[in-house]
Amino acid sequence: MLTAITTASIITIGDELLIGQTVDTNSAFIAQELNQIGIWVRRRVAVGDRYEDIRQALDEESRSADLILITGGLGPTSDDITKPLLCEYFGGKLVRNESVLKHIEYLFKEVYRRPGPLLDRNIRQADVPDVCEVLPNAIGTAPGMLFRKNGKLFISLPGVPAEMKRLITEQVIPRLVREWTMASILHRTLLTAGAGESILAEALTEFEASLSNSLKLAYLPKFGMVKLRLTYIGPSELEGNALIEEAFPRLAAAVKTWLVTEDDINLEVLIGNWLREHKKTMGTAESCTGGSIASLLTSVPGSSEYFIGSVVSYANRIKVELLDVQQETLLTVGAVSEKAVTEMIQGGLKRLGTDFMVSVSGILGPGGATPEKPVGTIWIAAGSKTRIITRKLNLRFDRARNTVITTHQCLLLLWELLQTNEG
Amino acid sequence: MLTAITTASIITIGDELLIGQTVDTNSAFIAQELNQIGIWVRRRVAVGDRYEDIRQALDEESRSADLILITGGLGPTSDDITKPLLCEYFGGKLVRNESVLKHIEYLFKEVYRRPGPLLDRNIRQADVPDVCEVLPNAIGTAPGMLFRKNGKLFISLPGVPAEMKRLITEQVIPRLVREWTMASILHRTLLTAGAGESILAEALTEFEASLSNSLKLAYLPKFGMVKLRLTYIGPSELEGNALIEEAFPRLAAAVKTWLVTEDDINLEVLIGNWLREHKKTMGTAESCTGGSIASLLTSVPGSSEYFIGSVVSYANRIKVELLDVQQETLLTVGAVSEKAVTEMIQGGLKRLGTDFMVSVSGILGPGGATPEKPVGTIWIAAGSKTRIITRKLNLRFDRARNTVITTHQCLLLLWELLQTNEG
Repeated sequence: MLTAITTASIITIGDELLIGQTVDTNSAFIAQELNQIGIWVRRRVAVGDRYEDIRQALDEESRSADLILITGGLGPTSDDITKPLLCEYFGGKLVRNESVLKHIEYLFKEVYRRPGPLLDRNIRQADVPDVCEVLPNAIGTAPGMLFRKNGKLFISLPGVPAEMKRLITEQVIPRLVREWTMASILHRTLLTAGAGESILAEALTEFEASLSNSLKLAYLPKFGMVKLRLTYIGPSELEGNALIEEAFPRLAAAVKTWLVTEDDINLEVLIGNWLREHKKTMGTAESCTGGSIASLLTSVPGSSEYFIGSVVSYANRIKVELLDVQQETLLTVGAVSEKAVTEMIQGGLKRLGTDFMVSVSGILGPGGATPEKPVGTIWIAAGSKTRIITRKLNLRFDRARNTVITTHQCLLLLWELLQTNEG
Repeated sequence: MLTAITTASIITIGDELLIGQTVDTNSAFIAQELNQIGIWVRRRVAVGDRYEDIRQALDEESRSADLILITGGLGPTSDDITKPLLCEYFGGKLVRNESVLKHIEYLFKEVYRRPGPLLDRNIRQADVPDVCEVLPNAIGTAPGMLFRKNGKLFISLPGVPAEMKRLITEQVIPRLVREWTMASILHRTLLTAGAGESILAEALTEFEASLSNSLKLAYLPKFGMVKLRLTYIGPSELEGNALIEEAFPRLAAAVKTWLVTEDDINLEVLIGNWLREHKKTMGTAESCTGGSIASLLTSVPGSSEYFIGSVVSYANRIKVELLDVQQETLLTVGAVSEKAVTEMIQGGLKRLGTDFMVSVSGILGPGGATPEKPVGTIWIAAGSKTRIITRKLNLRFDRARNTVITTHQCLLLLWELLQTNEG
């Protein structure tokens, strides 16, 4: 009998993952959650809706992992072959589960508000292998299923992200913690900006050489910044904490020049926390980013406490009419200029009545370039009534990546301003 | 010797994928590109930066695939162990490649503008196994590498998305097409809205029964809509085209009630194309979505032709001051109301001077609910000077999913309006 779980494999099922129509965000979520309770995800495998491929994955992954987590393939349509396959694989037969059926009836009647009797294919979602334990899916029709075979644990979950997430946090994790023993996996992460991986690695040569065998340092470049992550995997949370407590301050000291924060939080949360704490407000005046900065800032729950609003002035006319940019500025130096983003800050502070603003105007590509202003020429600014700082970016990526890097550079610039804020 | 390529496996290397710190977007891109030239990706595997796990993946994946694509693990830091491992696996030794070294020098001097001599770790990025063919990386320091072993083809690429993408489109794909024979894989996709998977499947029972064995139908739920994809895999592009030509119109007819578009394009592109064609403009007035709709619309290259701008009125004060929402509306029925989103359309049309507007105000969660307006209560509107349509959503997901579904529901509502537009 399986009493301790050390490693897991995640199997995601669905052709859409193999033809590139869908990006697999489920695996990242599951890995994160398992990690937090001390289960190391050794492999992730994606296979299509094909009988032999799913079987092969089940065989192979159960060879090296204690826990096999399967998502996808449980919908009501005929391209979903997973349930009969699982039934056969674990040697059971499909039986109707009355409590699942009741739940499906409830969902269709009360939540989806679909009149009329259930379709056969929906009723069949209540059929589960008689060798599994059912994990109730509070917000969807396909239940989770838990199987045991050859001392390994298999858990099958629907692929719809919201349903999978809820099953993981409310059913799977509590269950695992209650019934099995796990190792300790601890992470601590800090965020740097302004130095590439090589420069950081150079600054960290001595630190890395000094590192205990149970600790591992990873470099995670993201949005033009680099996260550094220290990880402990071992038997003892106590030991892990002690080792990280000792090493982490040395890590932070070694990269002090580029350190943004020692907390594992995103820039938008970091800035939000500061504004909330200092009872200040902010807004954005965006041209080329088209609302991405505002969208990122408001993705944080509770951001309405400090985020007031935004003017997306995609057309130059709006820069003049809603942000008081001077016609003359547009005619002489143009919208992609230090002067324009400075005026956007000033206009935004007035029109939105905020304490702080960020602004941006640039050419993200692929079109819009001029001989003097190639694609990737972007002016950004951050400011308050007393101080405005500006920066020029020269990016060389595609439109999507230029947008996301610009968005984060704007937040970095604002963070720089907030750090030096006197009032 | 390998002359034809039928199947591929993608191996992504990096601990960050297994602890959930990074979502793997590379695999989706690679799968898409390989698919277009007729290579079926049978499996995708993610493993950590561990010697034995990478070796195991190389062994296993080369058993069932003709082409093994490897990304990640090639950076300049010491957590990257892939290159020495590949060198050993393919029986070569590391030698300095002078043309790669020159390129690295060029990048540091001219592109990154880093003064001073190269670091050792950067120079070492020019060391490649003498048994590989180098694939030059135009925008990064780590080159791609192509190996052959036991009649299989292995291609190793850096994990930085922009570098990987450029290597795939400019080096890998042309090379594969030139030197190997591939099958035909054809897809055709349409977009539906307003019906769940089960209802669609019910409407398609007859259609699915009639489908040729070489064709496969897939249901892809996304953002509260469902894409339907017809796929042909077989020896002949001619046959595939003929089969799809025959089946696709029947598919479209069977789901006519819910059909949004028969083209495989996103809503934001569909709307953009319509506006460009009709020489009309639009803008957004957003509260709870915080600029997400504007951000999605402006993610389309060339959107400045029809997208004018946006007012993100996160605070109620901004709704009044920049969108002319009546104080009385806010005091009586509140910001989350049909009246408020209607006034936001009217104010937006006037302030931004556009032909069309969408607006939205709601409670995305987790906070902000009242007894009358629970989390997920969202009013949306789309309008022109002559007509405004509104809709109330009752969503039941988390903040992120509520945001993305609301964003797409706003675009759907606008599309509905555009379809009935007279002038």
